[in-house]
Amino acid sequence: MIVYDYFRSSAAFRLRIALNLKGLSPERRYIHLANNAHRTDEYRAINPQGLVPYMIDDDGFELSQSLAIIEYLDETHPEPPIIPADLKERAFARSIAQIIACDIHPVNNKRILDKLVDDFQAGDSVKTRWYCGWIHEGFVALEKILEKRRVQSAFCVGEIPTIADICLIPQVANANRFKCALEVFPRVVGIYQHAMKLSAFHDAQPSKQPDFPSAEI
Amino acid sequence: MIVYDYFRSSAAFRLRIALNLKGLSPERRYIHLANNAHRTDEYRAINPQGLVPYMIDDDGFELSQSLAIIEYLDETHPEPPIIPADLKERAFARSIAQIIACDIHPVNNKRILDKLVDDFQAGDSVKTRWYCGWIHEGFVALEKILEKRRVQSAFCVGEIPTIADICLIPQVANANRFKCALEVFPRVVGIYQHAMKLSAFHDAQPSKQPDFPSAEI
Repeated sequence: MIVYDYFRSSAAFRLRIALNLKGLSPERRYIHLANNAHRTDEYRAINPQGLVPYMIDDDGFELSQSLAIIEYLDETHPEPPIIPADLKERAFARSIAQIIACDIHPVNNKRILDKLVDDFQAGDSVKTRWYCGWIHEGFVALEKILEKRRVQSAFCVGEIPTIADICLIPQVANANRFKCALEVFPRVVGIYQHAMKLSAFHDAQPSKQPDFPSAEI
Repeated sequence: MIVYDYFRSSAAFRLRIALNLKGLSPERRYIHLANNAHRTDEYRAINPQGLVPYMIDDDGFELSQSLAIIEYLDETHPEPPIIPADLKERAFARSIAQIIACDIHPVNNKRILDKLVDDFQAGDSVKTRWYCGWIHEGFVALEKILEKRRVQSAFCVGEIPTIADICLIPQVANANRFKCALEVFPRVVGIYQHAMKLSAFHDAQPSKQPDFPSAEI
């Protein structure tokens, strides 16, 4: 298996956690998004979307989109499960994953922040306000949804990590990077702190990747 | 089953298609997003995200996020399948759904366009350029991904509609509404035209909903 990766990408961070949980070590190829390596004809011929992560399985099967790749990994390598077996728990885990992957992350990723600069000459403080505003709105909902379940568990769904945590932890890491205020989200922060004690999460973070630039340490 | 719905929401449009394909007719409750009915304390107590669609099943199980609800429906009402049985086809269908649900739709929905007005005083022409720009970037990739598969089929994955088409058709309908140029996307447009001949898709469009305002006809 080949995985196209980039240390800073939250979507790639999700897939790294899933691979670690499954004990899989595919070949990694690094696409430096900040250098626009994803915009080259060479990479677009592989992944027309020009995003990471992207997976090529041993038989040549190609797949884009972090959540689709994670579901595929869970179906092809079932142990340990990262999508719960119970129908309602599966659905709940996917809904948390999608709140992050559809409603929080996309409006804050690099291409949108770049576009705010290009189209509206947004400066750093405007970009940070945009970023933390969507984090706040999304995390207010997430915190209430976790509360509404009336189950206080170590991870979003229960005592083992699922696709929900795989999405949540990179999003919290990024919110920390932008110094967004998170003290009003005790459940979200509690799950993050718990998860980051596990090597599958800890080792997947940007600063632990081979392509992390030494200048950022 | 109760579904919270709004005629204009693309995510609700997806779920309406899935319900039609499954032959399900839940009770509908209409949340008028343009009137900010989703921002009331009453609705936020039900769905803390304040978005539609939202589902409450007969046993009280509640679920947000269109794709999570659609996967849940497919698992609880397996016939006809809208997630293919084959592992690779499932994965491919989900990846197309997520390209739309994670990378095209969220950056163009109402709350983002409203925010461009609030933060940057964007006028109608700026909003349309923003909207059609992301449609163009996303559809260029989708068209190439469909081409790259080298399978010319009636729907995204094969001869029957899947979660991929359930996401694609509302996105094309919305692009038409904003008058985005689509003639360079023959496969995308071809799938749209084919799908809209089916009552499951046709009857799910905004103009066919009970909450569609008569002034818009």
